[in-house]
Amino acid sequence: MPEFLTLFPPDEARDLMLLHLPATGVDSESIDVTSSLGRILAEDILAPHPLPEFQRSTVDGYAVRARDTFGASDALPAYLTLVGEVPMGDVPPFGIDMGQCALIHTGGMLPNGTDAVVMLEYSQVARSGLLLQSASQSPEWSDHEIEIFRAVADGENVIRMGEDVVQGQTILPKGRIMRPAEIGGLLAVGILSLRVARKIVVGLISTGDEVIDPSQMPRPGQVRDINSYTLGALVEKSGGVAKRYGIISDQLQALNDAAAQALSECDVVIITAGSSASTRDMTAEVIGSLGKPGVLVHGINTRPGKPTILGVCHGKAVIGLPGNPVSALVNGYLFVLPVIEKLTGALPQPKATVLAKLSVNLSSQAGREDWWPVKLRSSPKKGDGGDVYEADPIFGKSNLIFTLANADGLLRIHPDATGLSAGETVEVLLI
Amino acid sequence: MPEFLTLFPPDEARDLMLLHLPATGVDSESIDVTSSLGRILAEDILAPHPLPEFQRSTVDGYAVRARDTFGASDALPAYLTLVGEVPMGDVPPFGIDMGQCALIHTGGMLPNGTDAVVMLEYSQVARSGLLLQSASQSPEWSDHEIEIFRAVADGENVIRMGEDVVQGQTILPKGRIMRPAEIGGLLAVGILSLRVARKIVVGLISTGDEVIDPSQMPRPGQVRDINSYTLGALVEKSGGVAKRYGIISDQLQALNDAAAQALSECDVVIITAGSSASTRDMTAEVIGSLGKPGVLVHGINTRPGKPTILGVCHGKAVIGLPGNPVSALVNGYLFVLPVIEKLTGALPQPKATVLAKLSVNLSSQAGREDWWPVKLRSSPKKGDGGDVYEADPIFGKSNLIFTLANADGLLRIHPDATGLSAGETVEVLLI
Repeated sequence: MPEFLTLFPPDEARDLMLLHLPATGVDSESIDVTSSLGRILAEDILAPHPLPEFQRSTVDGYAVRARDTFGASDALPAYLTLVGEVPMGDVPPFGIDMGQCALIHTGGMLPNGTDAVVMLEYSQVARSGLLLQSASQSPEWSDHEIEIFRAVADGENVIRMGEDVVQGQTILPKGRIMRPAEIGGLLAVGILSLRVARKIVVGLISTGDEVIDPSQMPRPGQVRDINSYTLGALVEKSGGVAKRYGIISDQLQALNDAAAQALSECDVVIITAGSSASTRDMTAEVIGSLGKPGVLVHGINTRPGKPTILGVCHGKAVIGLPGNPVSALVNGYLFVLPVIEKLTGALPQPKATVLAKLSVNLSSQAGREDWWPVKLRSSPKKGDGGDVYEADPIFGKSNLIFTLANADGLLRIHPDATGLSAGETVEVLLI
Repeated sequence: MPEFLTLFPPDEARDLMLLHLPATGVDSESIDVTSSLGRILAEDILAPHPLPEFQRSTVDGYAVRARDTFGASDALPAYLTLVGEVPMGDVPPFGIDMGQCALIHTGGMLPNGTDAVVMLEYSQVARSGLLLQSASQSPEWSDHEIEIFRAVADGENVIRMGEDVVQGQTILPKGRIMRPAEIGGLLAVGILSLRVARKIVVGLISTGDEVIDPSQMPRPGQVRDINSYTLGALVEKSGGVAKRYGIISDQLQALNDAAAQALSECDVVIITAGSSASTRDMTAEVIGSLGKPGVLVHGINTRPGKPTILGVCHGKAVIGLPGNPVSALVNGYLFVLPVIEKLTGALPQPKATVLAKLSVNLSSQAGREDWWPVKLRSSPKKGDGGDVYEADPIFGKSNLIFTLANADGLLRIHPDATGLSAGETVEVLLI
């Protein structure tokens, strides 16, 4: 088996491939902020104005001059004259002088002269009379005197102008993924469109004389192509676009033609090999002839996925994945997603994991990185940090797609380890 | 502040609301498997046939009768007569008798009479002659004798028929979320369409006289509506459909009309309150009048989100969220997502988290559940289980949307705890 002369450590293999990809990534396009969920920002975004744009109350109460409340207590309240009610969504039509206050609601704009808000529960109307709902100062207000039972400091219960962001500040950096909060943040400062990296197009080629389209009925000896679809779904889940080039027969010229077309039309090309050694060699040969530098890595010290081929041709990643469905998909997570991330310019993001206790011993070969499909089982006791799980490895050959369909995640055994022990706490990568 | 007489513990509040929702969930619809990513299965799916449908080799080598290799070693090889090469994707046109073998590739169908495969590397062609690429038995083959240096057991290097799934087995249960592996699994057995829960429609109503559409330029005292969009993106991210009903003024009749219309057109209604106490009370009044049982919970012992209102009207969840953008979104994660999950019939799924070391002390009030936005910082050392992070809490009032836009996740302080200490290992919920 001359194809696996040198097995690369997986991290080194990935880094080598990424290093050969252009640093600039793909073009950007302008889209509406409201349709930007999951997209990657292609530019730094600066605040066009401060947020909030005016000093607001964070509570319901009385807007005051803090120094008028100093020393106030239940036993010795401060007495302030009520001059009006701050209208919501408008500028208060009055200012506040020494010894005065104004009724204010959460989100209301502080009247001129005030610098703090006393919460309603620390106050009481001292002189009787109805507090009329009125948007402007009116003679009735001066009938009221408010007892204040607690002192407030300058700025208490207030959001200052620009406390969220100041004008000109970088509010979102290039490479940030747009989540619900980012969408809200941009709309809050009136930004309605933005530039994002365009979607990465990944070409998918299946090979193998035994492989047929999933819609066809297999004759004995044939199997349905699922790698184009599992990897396509993975690409889609990661914000990319999958472009399928169908099933190519085990002939060099046919594969060469399909790969060359895919390379010209896509940002990334994935060839899932037919499972025989001859087809795997053919994939390497095709990648070698598509463009420089060609094959960078042939064989990775990982299980599943040893026959994985990583190449770059004319600045585009071309990846040969094993035909076994579990190998293909696991190695899609390990080697295709980082390419999509690099091309979109995405900032590194924490991977979604779950902490679990391993239920059995797992052995591994030193130097090899293993990825085990595991099922998570809720543990009866609950921890403070969230749910507690037990991780049950799913044993099965890498040809069995349902070992992965029944798994909640993947458990990694580090290349330096020779296994993991039952009861160990492990991090499971959610898939 | 009579509105918060009884604060519910958050888990109890959520359970109470979910209990009042119909157990049956929403209708299902039939869609293509290839377009089912992220959808929730509405039925158990049974295997229409075993997978694989025939006995396949997992390696490149020679298909043999295991007992013909017993005792074989480097010193004392077994000698077998080569009768042909198994064609890929077809039935071998020959059977194997005692003392015979056939060349087979990974994925090839085992010829009749064989029960194991010897890997190529444990074999050698004993009698010279070219191994012609031929799909059928031909006279040349009998010229070859193969030396086998290692014994194989019955079934070795073979996937048995039905080893992945047996016919009639439940391969995917109702409630399973469709991920790449599930899509592959169904296509592998030729299932091209499936029934999934239809998408949950969530109606979003914003209230508040100070609130304007994000496309408008705020006058002093006004703020842009972002809750309809942050919550809309959250709904979309969770596979639902957001239907926005705009910004309703602080008038009971207007809010009543909008809420009644949303209730008739949607599966869930969310009202984000204007921030003043009067608007918050109005939300409760409206939910109370929309239908039985109405308001179930008014006030939850959580921060942010104390004023949250949970109701059910005519079997549909109607949720009042605080107007503060951080409160609204955090409580969307805590109370809206579980409703969507229940209505789609989704099986419980592990929440995506990341393990981190807390960088500072955080205090909390006993009995209250706190959710802190935190930023994750990659720690210099790497653990075996994956990346190691430090979690830096982002301090800021719940009105500041960029505290959440700059956060990687949320850190929960359990109601029983009065805080967390610097250096503690915590689970951060990714948002």
